[in-house]
Amino acid sequence: MMQCWKGFYNCWFSKKKAFANKIYRITGMRPRELALYELAFRHSSLVTDSRCSAQECNERLEFLGDSILSAAVSEFLFKKYPSKNEGFLTEMRSKIVNRARLNELGFKLGLDAILRYNKKLGSFNRSICGNALEALIGAIYLDLGYRAAQYFIIHKMINIYLNLDELETQNHNYKSQLMEFAQKHKIEPIIYEVVEETFAGNIKEFTVACIIQDKVMGLGKDTKKKVAEQKASEMALLKLCS
Amino acid sequence: MMQCWKGFYNCWFSKKKAFANKIYRITGMRPRELALYELAFRHSSLVTDSRCSAQECNERLEFLGDSILSAAVSEFLFKKYPSKNEGFLTEMRSKIVNRARLNELGFKLGLDAILRYNKKLGSFNRSICGNALEALIGAIYLDLGYRAAQYFIIHKMINIYLNLDELETQNHNYKSQLMEFAQKHKIEPIIYEVVEETFAGNIKEFTVACIIQDKVMGLGKDTKKKVAEQKASEMALLKLCS
Repeated sequence: MMQCWKGFYNCWFSKKKAFANKIYRITGMRPRELALYELAFRHSSLVTDSRCSAQECNERLEFLGDSILSAAVSEFLFKKYPSKNEGFLTEMRSKIVNRARLNELGFKLGLDAILRYNKKLGSFNRSICGNALEALIGAIYLDLGYRAAQYFIIHKMINIYLNLDELETQNHNYKSQLMEFAQKHKIEPIIYEVVEETFAGNIKEFTVACIIQDKVMGLGKDTKKKVAEQKASEMALLKLCS
Repeated sequence: MMQCWKGFYNCWFSKKKAFANKIYRITGMRPRELALYELAFRHSSLVTDSRCSAQECNERLEFLGDSILSAAVSEFLFKKYPSKNEGFLTEMRSKIVNRARLNELGFKLGLDAILRYNKKLGSFNRSICGNALEALIGAIYLDLGYRAAQYFIIHKMINIYLNLDELETQNHNYKSQLMEFAQKHKIEPIIYEVVEETFAGNIKEFTVACIIQDKVMGLGKDTKKKVAEQKASEMALLKLCS
């Protein structure tokens, strides 16, 4: 009996140790409260009883991690670009923390190998990985604090996987991306329509709708029609790809 | 000459001291780097040379403060409601940090009395106050750190001015608010139209457009048509009131 318990304990202990090592390899920091990280990698598809889903999957940690990520990236950009205005900083932040980028980073960090989800409930959705990355940030924050989460974001994500100079000059041409997507999936025509013109002081602002096959798929507002079209295309792309 | 310099110095010093006292009364904390707070209350309408606008007005601090606010509120809600799911937390956060609420809190904190803006450039816009509140949070964060910003947000904003029990049960009925607004300003009719139906796994999602006087003013997506209509109404209200 004693032998049996010892075997069970050893097995359990070595599993925990292996998991802690994986977290260390990803984050560069030794986890204290391992249960937080286990939760971060537990997708909601594993929850059977919806009444207690809140504590049993990573969605709450994802909620927290999402805003910690945004705060850390904002501070990083604020300090890196002391002479750039708020518009530039906002654009750079959205280039770093958009859904597609987080999914990609989640894969690059190898989170898909640790993630636990119900494989019976359909194919693997890429966004599960991006969500788990946010949940991991939430777990690091709760376990080791704001500076540790910031360290992970800057030194294990941004500095390793992102080329900021490239991002800076990269023009997010959502309109052409959308055009490409629509042609590929045969969902044309795409029409852009100015649905509103407003004045903020002396400055005119346009609200442009992106209409695909007679359905409004995106809205964008800006002082320049072209930028409003880009924003509307971004929203439409997000909808089509989500 | 000496007397003149002394007079100038005393005047400058007492002005600084008075400003530091005002900040102390608002935040409950003694500022270290006063220039940060001065910047937080300097609106972009005062900037004459657009080339150096980034360092001369509060927009960059607003960018930073906005995300620090969101992170602090997220953590506060995450800990206050340990059994609530991500949907509830997201809704509560948006009830706390929405534009109208921030403008209102900015006024309640008396920020309008410290704010500096160009009075020649039209009437006072309420959102200037909400933006200055975000910039103030950015200044506190840079000056005194994350915990100080968190202290201000929880103890000087949430605990004093918000009734969370009320917020929790409060149903954001944006649809009826919009209806009321539209009747008052004679901008009817309001039409809700399902513009898209998609499937996420087995779950159907509706995208509803809120169309006012033939213009798409808002879009909302949810598994329930009624909730999607609320979301579309919220977006429309935001546009109409901004």
